[in-house]
Amino acid sequence: MLKVIVLGFGNVGQQLAQAFYHADTIDLVQVYSRSKASAHELPKELITSDIKSLKKAEIYVVAVPDDAIASFTQSFPYKEALVAHTSGSVSIETVSNTHRKAVFYPLQTFSKDREIAWSEVPICLEATVAEDKATLQQLAAAISDTVVWMSSEKRRTLHLAAVFLNNFVNHLYHISEEIINEQQLDFKLLLPLLNETAQKVRDIAPIKAQTGPAKRNDLKTIEKHLALLQQPNQRDIYQLLTKSIQATYGKEL
Amino acid sequence: MLKVIVLGFGNVGQQLAQAFYHADTIDLVQVYSRSKASAHELPKELITSDIKSLKKAEIYVVAVPDDAIASFTQSFPYKEALVAHTSGSVSIETVSNTHRKAVFYPLQTFSKDREIAWSEVPICLEATVAEDKATLQQLAAAISDTVVWMSSEKRRTLHLAAVFLNNFVNHLYHISEEIINEQQLDFKLLLPLLNETAQKVRDIAPIKAQTGPAKRNDLKTIEKHLALLQQPNQRDIYQLLTKSIQATYGKEL
Repeated sequence: MLKVIVLGFGNVGQQLAQAFYHADTIDLVQVYSRSKASAHELPKELITSDIKSLKKAEIYVVAVPDDAIASFTQSFPYKEALVAHTSGSVSIETVSNTHRKAVFYPLQTFSKDREIAWSEVPICLEATVAEDKATLQQLAAAISDTVVWMSSEKRRTLHLAAVFLNNFVNHLYHISEEIINEQQLDFKLLLPLLNETAQKVRDIAPIKAQTGPAKRNDLKTIEKHLALLQQPNQRDIYQLLTKSIQATYGKEL
Repeated sequence: MLKVIVLGFGNVGQQLAQAFYHADTIDLVQVYSRSKASAHELPKELITSDIKSLKKAEIYVVAVPDDAIASFTQSFPYKEALVAHTSGSVSIETVSNTHRKAVFYPLQTFSKDREIAWSEVPICLEATVAEDKATLQQLAAAISDTVVWMSSEKRRTLHLAAVFLNNFVNHLYHISEEIINEQQLDFKLLLPLLNETAQKVRDIAPIKAQTGPAKRNDLKTIEKHLALLQQPNQRDIYQLLTKSIQATYGKEL
């Protein structure tokens, strides 16, 4: 059993701790939560808010905000311990020099009260000490079927791509809901389309799956849409993305 | 058996014709295809490219480009026939005055060689003649579990929302793939995230599902991302969507 401690109990920390807790080959020794931990299914005795009472473990997984990784890892005890941060965009070097640095980045979006299918979440690993690779691999493979090793540079790019694919896509979902709510229509009506859009790219590259007025360079429909959009923000986004699609398919405005 | 003829054999026309062909309560009498029809599974004798040899049917479903609906429906025979166009953004009034006007709009994205789960596709109906409503309802219910009646105005808004949800989302998928290909990473790595993003909004409204640096107002990560983006087009989209998310959550730049 691999002895693991999770530090940080936000969305990522909570979900990771629960995944480790349920994994057969992992011994979740302790969880550090700065503030009083909210509702969760872990035994209370596992959780501490006192960094000085931190126990020993083979690997410490740090799930704190990006900005806090450097100062937090400096402050905590057990020099020479194996310490992995969980951020997509932060370099492995950010972990304090007093530790064996590593990265354990789960490529997924985490929300409160939303269960994650951990076996499908790619875990992106990085280590500075060769001997730590087996430990990290074992930890990742205990909860996921997809374990990938990559440099901080590649991980940063992956995280950037994920921002477009998740953050920005979700924001477009939100705008879509705003637009249809204005007409007292139900967002649920759009779910089959939303789903097919996501499913389609499993079989067809997005560049080939593109449809719609911008792709067809259907200027009449584009004009009608712009006239319908009341919020300047929605208009700006419509125009920029339309221009980008037109340019992608060689139809400049 | 309801006698139906489909006119137009692009992505929508082909998929509709096949759905009607397989429906138990529908008699697909004929399909009009202007050009030689490409590979499909319909019996050849069903297909004609001669508008003058058009047969009689209870309803004619017109799946031609938006711009062609007016002139095309003017040109074809059988005055007083029930003629439905299939466009999201075109008014019902666009159908030629010589016919009983209707709309049969399937809210989905159609690509070549991609099978559609028709039972899940919302069909949005509209009619000008009250007596035609039963025919349209029967036709739609024969292939889909979700049949909705709505005005041209509401349908136009729905179509606009669909452009954000499908066209623009798919374009963000494409940009995401561009970014990750530059680092020789595999787009497949992002599919679990893409899928979870789409699944999540079934349970959580997009406004609540939002995560990421823009939502957190994490300016450091935003700066790093902008520095990484080489293409001006990608930078512009990143900046505008980030600004829009920040504004949505009350964090103006």
